[in-house]
Parts: sequence; C-alpha cells; structure tokens
Amino acid sequence: MKPSVTRRSLLILVLAVGVAIGVRAAAQSDPLPAWNDGPAKKAIVDFVQATTTQGNPQFVPAEERIATFDQDGTLWVEQPVYSQIMYCLDRVPAVVKAKPELAEVEPFKTVMSGNREAIAKLSMKDLEKILVATLTGMPTEEFRAEAKKWLETARDPRWKRPYTELTYLPMHDVLKYMRANGYRTYIVTGGGQDFVRVYAEQVYGIPPEQVVGTMGGTKFGYDKAGKPFLLKEPRLLLNDDKAGKPEGIHLMIGRRPRAAFGNSAGDREMLEYTKAGDGARLAMLVLHDDATREYAYGPAQGLPDSKVGTFTQALYDEAKQKGWVVISMKNDWNEVFPPTTVGATTR
Amino acid sequence: MKPSVTRRSLLILVLAVGVAIGVRAAAQSDPLPAWNDGPAKKAIVDFVQATTTQGNPQFVPAEERIATFDQDGTLWVEQPVYSQIMYCLDRVPAVVKAKPELAEVEPFKTVMSGNREAIAKLSMKDLEKILVATLTGMPTEEFRAEAKKWLETARDPRWKRPYTELTYLPMHDVLKYMRANGYRTYIVTGGGQDFVRVYAEQVYGIPPEQVVGTMGGTKFGYDKAGKPFLLKEPRLLLNDDKAGKPEGIHLMIGRRPRAAFGNSAGDREMLEYTKAGDGARLAMLVLHDDATREYAYGPAQGLPDSKVGTFTQALYDEAKQKGWVVISMKNDWNEVFPPTTVGATTR
Repeated sequence: MKPSVTRRSLLILVLAVGVAIGVRAAAQSDPLPAWNDGPAKKAIVDFVQATTTQGNPQFVPAEERIATFDQDGTLWVEQPVYSQIMYCLDRVPAVVKAKPELAEVEPFKTVMSGNREAIAKLSMKDLEKILVATLTGMPTEEFRAEAKKWLETARDPRWKRPYTELTYLPMHDVLKYMRANGYRTYIVTGGGQDFVRVYAEQVYGIPPEQVVGTMGGTKFGYDKAGKPFLLKEPRLLLNDDKAGKPEGIHLMIGRRPRAAFGNSAGDREMLEYTKAGDGARLAMLVLHDDATREYAYGPAQGLPDSKVGTFTQALYDEAKQKGWVVISMKNDWNEVFPPTTVGATTR
Repeated sequence: MKPSVTRRSLLILVLAVGVAIGVRAAAQSDPLPAWNDGPAKKAIVDFVQATTTQGNPQFVPAEERIATFDQDGTLWVEQPVYSQIMYCLDRVPAVVKAKPELAEVEPFKTVMSGNREAIAKLSMKDLEKILVATLTGMPTEEFRAEAKKWLETARDPRWKRPYTELTYLPMHDVLKYMRANGYRTYIVTGGGQDFVRVYAEQVYGIPPEQVVGTMGGTKFGYDKAGKPFLLKEPRLLLNDDKAGKPEGIHLMIGRRPRAAFGNSAGDREMLEYTKAGDGARLAMLVLHDDATREYAYGPAQGLPDSKVGTFTQALYDEAKQKGWVVISMKNDWNEVFPPTTVGATTR
C-alpha cells in the first residue's frame, strides 16, 4: 500500500497548494462584489473579520457562528404580494375541484371569479381560510411536490421571471461570505416553514434544517398499504413573525444568533434578541428605496405604508438609536438581481 | 507576499501528508472499537460504507446524511428513573421555597416528605405538575444555568457518577464514526429539548440545533431594564415520543433520516418513518439484556415490564419482521461506559 499513500500524498499536496493560492486570491478579491463601498458593506466585512480572527477580542468560536436572515424583502422580492400567497391563490381551483361545494362559499368564490380587485380586498380572515385550505390536509410529500411544481412554472408579473430568481444578488454575497467564514446561515421567516424548505437549498444553499418559519403541526399515520406518512394539519405551532422570530430561533436553533438581517417591523424582535447577547453582534435592515430597480416603500422614507414588509418610522428610529445598520438598496447595492440564467430565458 | 505563500504552502503540505497518513491509519483501525464483531457491528459498518462510497448503488449525497438517536436507554442509562425526572424532583424544594403555599399541596407535599416509596408511586398527572413547576415559568437562560449546575453535582445512585458520564461508549463510537463519514447526528428524545441541549454538545458533540426533544413554548418579553428575554411557558408544542418523533423530525430537520437508533416502543414510529424512505436506510434497537454491567429489562426478553424504555414483545416482533437490527448490550458491546475520567474520580 505504500506507493498508494505516496500518490495520495502528492495529490493532496497539489490540492493543498491550490487551496493556499485560492485562499490568498479570495482574500485579495472582494468578498461582496455586488456591494458598493460604504458603511453597510464595511459593517459586514468588519464584523466577519473581527469575529473570525483568532486573538481578536471579538472572536466568536465556530459553534456559535449563527446568522439569521428574514426572507421576504430581505433575501427576495416581497412586492406586491408574498409569493406564498400567490401559491395559495393559484391552488384554489384545485381545492375547489376536489371539493366542488366550496365554489359557492367565500372567500373561494371570489378567488374563483378571477376579479383581481376583489381578491386584493380579501380580509386577513379570508386569507387564513385560503391558507388552511391550500397548505394543510395533505401528506407532507404531496405538498412538497405541488409547491415544487408551482415554483417551476409561476412567474412574477413584473419581471416575468420565476420567483426563485428574484433573489438579491448582494444577499447571496453575504450568505456565501458568512458561510465561507464558518457561519451557519438560517432563514427565519414569517412564511411557511414547509413552503420555504422546498426551494431554500437550491436557491440559497440553505438546507431544510436551517429554515425556521411559521410552523404547523403534522400527524403521523399510515396509508392503506401500511406505509407511514405525515399529514399537514391546520394547527399552528408557532407564528414565526415579530416576537415569534426569537421564539422560533430558540425552538429550532437553541442559540442566540450573532448576526441578523431583516427589512421590516416583523424582524424587530429578532434583531433586538440578537443584539442583547454578549460580545460581537450585527443587526442589519434592508431599506427598499429603489423604485427603479425594485420598489420603494415604507413610512421610514416618507412613502405610503405597504401591506407587506413595513419598514416603519419607529423601526428606523430604533435602528438609528441602537446602531443597527440600515442597508440602502439604492446606494449600497450595485446589482439587485442575479443575471438572468439560461434556464430563465428559455422558459 | 510571495515568500509567505510559499511558507504557507509548505505548512499545508506537512499538514496534508499528516492527514493522509492519519486517514490511512483510521481506515485500517477499527471504527467501532467498543463493539464486538457480530451482525450489529457489521450492519453499521456496511451501511456507512455503502452509503458513503461514490458509485455504490446505495450512495447517499452528503446533504441527506441524517442519523437520529433516541437518548434515554439508547445513548445513556435510563434506569431506574429518567435523569430529567430526578432533576425535576430535586428542584422541588427551591420551587416550594419560592412559593411556600405549595408545601401543603400535592404532589409537592409528597416530594418534600422525602418518602421514596410514596414518590415512586406518584401518578403521571402528579409528575406533570412537578414538570410544569420546575421546567417552566423562568427565563430560558436561568433554566439553562440551573440545569447545568445540577448536572455538575448530581450523581447516579448506583454508580455514584454524574449522569453525563453514564453514556454508552459503543454509541459514542457510532456517533463519531457516522460524523466522520459526513452524517449529521441528531438526538431525538422524549426528554425536554431545552434540558438535553444543556449538555448534549459537551457530552455527545451534538450541538443544540441538532437536539429534537419534547418542546414547550416560550414567550418573548422585556425585563425591567428593557432587555429582551424568553420565558419558558407551560405550553406543550410537541410531545416528542412515539408518533411525536417523526413529527418532531419533520418540524426540526425537514428530512427523513437515513439511520435511526432507539431502544423502546417510544422509538417505533421513528424507525418506521426512517425505513419507509427510498434507498439505504438503517434501523437499530438497543436491547438491555446485561444485568451485570447495566440493566436487563423489557418483555422482549421475558423480563418484567419497566416504567421506562419498554422494549415490548410487539416491538421485538416488528424488528425481526422488518429487518431492524437488535443490538444486544451483553453480546455486542465489549465496554458499556467510557473509562472513569479524572474529573469523575476526583469529584
């Protein structure tokens, strides 16, 4: 076996030298290429460097390197409607087909009418009925398959691209940069945990076990052939929004994050919880102030309030007071979206 | 900078050669030294080799390598009483001190009496009252500190060792072997998720985010100084036992395990769920048949039923029928516990 060891050692040597050169090249190149130089970019780089440099007073041991990211409005577009709501509305015809009696029952009747104005006016209570009807009552694997199919075909009305392509390139930079420095990156979203898990691994490189979302109960049972399955139940375990975000983080991760990224009042408690820990902590908020490349909304910049992702004046004031870093989409990002992929142009 | 790169490359070369030699040494040495040769050991090694060898029809991609382990009776001693119950009983005096009116109220009165026979006879309902009083109502960090303190001082009555040392050496072998082969090892326990998280990282090398246990709700709030904290509430989110185990796995991991280890009827659904997936799956059960070195209990071997960790005859029959591998503690393990550490002998 000796010759084999020698060959292997040589191979590893070649790889190691390659890695050494690669490490150096990466250190010299920009870790956040889609970011313009400025306080936001500097805050991220300074934080990562300080917390991962042995001997730095702000050094964080590898096991404690946890970074949490809101999804809607922080990692991808949330306007004009959360894409999960689009999924639920698009699923209504199938639900009505399976239960024809719903065709004459509100809010399903309104959704089936196709009247966009009326649909936009549906109340929160109506939306909840639609969510329950379209997100529960089926085995987890059936739900997964349906959601996957929809994500492959659905298109954002403005960009005509799959929702999964309307993610923010600069935030991909942050995810990759933090992971390259030993951080485990988690999504912490008000969206459905099972829904986001369907695409998070492919889209963000975030595996299912690192998706914390609004959680519903499941019920273990057996099908007719005796094969076990989990049925998605209309039973809310945790609404992973506002105060629910730190609660969800404790439940799913059991550690306080070192860094947290959000964009709305729904992320406030997550950022507060993150910053309340000892040592180095980073809290950042994406401000949507780019009407040309994306959207501009929220009272914090004197714009009318939005149904989704509200960056309130109170949140803005708290951020300034507590040293949370506000990211200006307009000024801090030199690109917003990843380049259109071949897949996207041919579809 | 060129000389620096060269020095770095040389250093990495030395390390790489060291690693290459180390890898070879490990491959030649026994990955499961505390196991005797036999069908159980063979099942583990065969499974790991098949699922991690590129080109093998049973190969499992790295991201899907999830292995779940029950704790009580699978990773450590569960007789005569789950150690978490001991913690709760030991905490009763402090609870009564804080709320003196409980001294005359059952079941607290019985616990305070110190009458072991009476305590052993407490009903499930009484135990639940004690669990709620001792595991909830405090901030998560206060609970963590209390549990940590107890674990450092409490001793198992038979071995006079800390509970955290009464873990099974052969199962440490399995945890390390699977992790060395890219498996993420999770605890999936009926015990309290927050309780097990206090020691799982130090004891098993399993981080908090890989502990799935019985889950209670928390409530986010602020203390008098305005600092946020999470209060442990007496609100059960998921009882992570029996059917709750696959439900907890879906909630916390979102993937079906490739391998699952248990020891009682409480693990049955987890093993069924694991084996119901496609491709290579491993299901194993620890049978406590070693009255000399540990305990012998459970109807599966004609022994009287136990209050905890019941290896029922039905479970034994299902295991045999479905090809789940039964581990005989007596025959398959050449050691049961890790050697007494210096810490343990001096304490």
